[in-house]
Amino acid sequence: MSKSAALLGGLHSARAVLASHPEAILSVVHLDTRDDARLQAVLDEASRHGIAIEAVRRVVLDRLAAQAGLDSHQGIMVRLRHEVGGPRREGLLAHLAALEGAPLVLVLDEVQDPHNLGACLRSADAAGVTAVITPRDNSVGLTATVRKVSAGATETVAWFQVVNLARCLDELKAAGLWIHGAAGEGEQTLYRTDLRGPTALVMGAEGRGLRQLTRKRCDSVFRIPMSGQVESLNVSVATGVVLFEAVRQRL
Amino acid sequence: MSKSAALLGGLHSARAVLASHPEAILSVVHLDTRDDARLQAVLDEASRHGIAIEAVRRVVLDRLAAQAGLDSHQGIMVRLRHEVGGPRREGLLAHLAALEGAPLVLVLDEVQDPHNLGACLRSADAAGVTAVITPRDNSVGLTATVRKVSAGATETVAWFQVVNLARCLDELKAAGLWIHGAAGEGEQTLYRTDLRGPTALVMGAEGRGLRQLTRKRCDSVFRIPMSGQVESLNVSVATGVVLFEAVRQRL
Repeated sequence: MSKSAALLGGLHSARAVLASHPEAILSVVHLDTRDDARLQAVLDEASRHGIAIEAVRRVVLDRLAAQAGLDSHQGIMVRLRHEVGGPRREGLLAHLAALEGAPLVLVLDEVQDPHNLGACLRSADAAGVTAVITPRDNSVGLTATVRKVSAGATETVAWFQVVNLARCLDELKAAGLWIHGAAGEGEQTLYRTDLRGPTALVMGAEGRGLRQLTRKRCDSVFRIPMSGQVESLNVSVATGVVLFEAVRQRL
Repeated sequence: MSKSAALLGGLHSARAVLASHPEAILSVVHLDTRDDARLQAVLDEASRHGIAIEAVRRVVLDRLAAQAGLDSHQGIMVRLRHEVGGPRREGLLAHLAALEGAPLVLVLDEVQDPHNLGACLRSADAAGVTAVITPRDNSVGLTATVRKVSAGATETVAWFQVVNLARCLDELKAAGLWIHGAAGEGEQTLYRTDLRGPTALVMGAEGRGLRQLTRKRCDSVFRIPMSGQVESLNVSVATGVVLFEAVRQRL
């Protein structure tokens, strides 16, 4: 785990960790010259939890951000007692069973790029997914870049890392979920795929798409209709398009 | 213009420039050990245009890719006589008037990050947009990263750079287009916005959203419904979601 684990930067991340893990926060450090409503709301929330608040000069905050491997801090950093968020190793089925309504699960099959994973987690949070699942091997895990690009979603999304993705998909099927995979050669379009029931959406990796073993588990394979010269979308863009089609259908 | 301008890498880019500007190609350079159907199809197409084809060892191709500022080449590089693709400075209204069907125009209001612009151009091509419009100032232009991330779309999408975005939006309105802007506080959701007619979709910059001057020109402002803790989507993901909602409505 990187040194950045105990330091979060930015309003997004501060708000997310205050909502999900206030007990893990050691202190909130903010820019002494910054005075706006969004920052103040976060500081008020921290006060309510009895968390120490520290106003510092820009040079101090910049140094903290650099320590965390971040380019910017938006005037606020959070010191943590211990690591929070990130992937869980167990409890996926119990998590799904505990929730009301039709689950919407996002499965990322060996996504390697931390920017893509971070953007997918951010979109997953925004779309209100029930869980994100990634395989433990051949996938990027929790890094400082994933955390930053996720805009706080690594702390709030239920993210599960599984050893055997094919077996996990079998378990989801047994739990009553429909498994829909995205692939350029899918037999039907995304828009003709019913995503209102208990659903797991499976996205392939950059350039390679779904693995054969993964594809075999899918109840259907759909495509996003493409009109131009390029062959595919960026995986994080495709994930956003697919998740928000599910949101649209469920509205 | 960077040194990379005269060198393109990857199957995506090779295919795109062969389709759009075969006359600009000096030669196609490919890996001598790579032998697959997708590469062969590109080489066959180059042959049909009478373009020189050169098989080289990996070390040579790797060096060419590094020259172009690229991490990878997918076994193929293209040498160009002159720069192709990239933004045009004139002819937007004539371009729109020359096309049949309801135009779908993407307007990016001061997007600064080359990865975001590249991904937006890639999505725009995939969604079959009529034109992409960016302001000349305070926006990223054509760079090697934009070109690569766009997966060939910089060569194929009709991309216009305008000096005065507000005036351009007025001209689009006068040409009969509806101007719809994306913003978190939009009064209606994306899904209740009719995108089937002549449409310009306006996306704001990273973090800042639409400028006041831009927003004033919009006939409507819509929001993508958000369910989680994060406040917004990455701009390239939001652009993909919005463009493919237009594709869905137009199917």
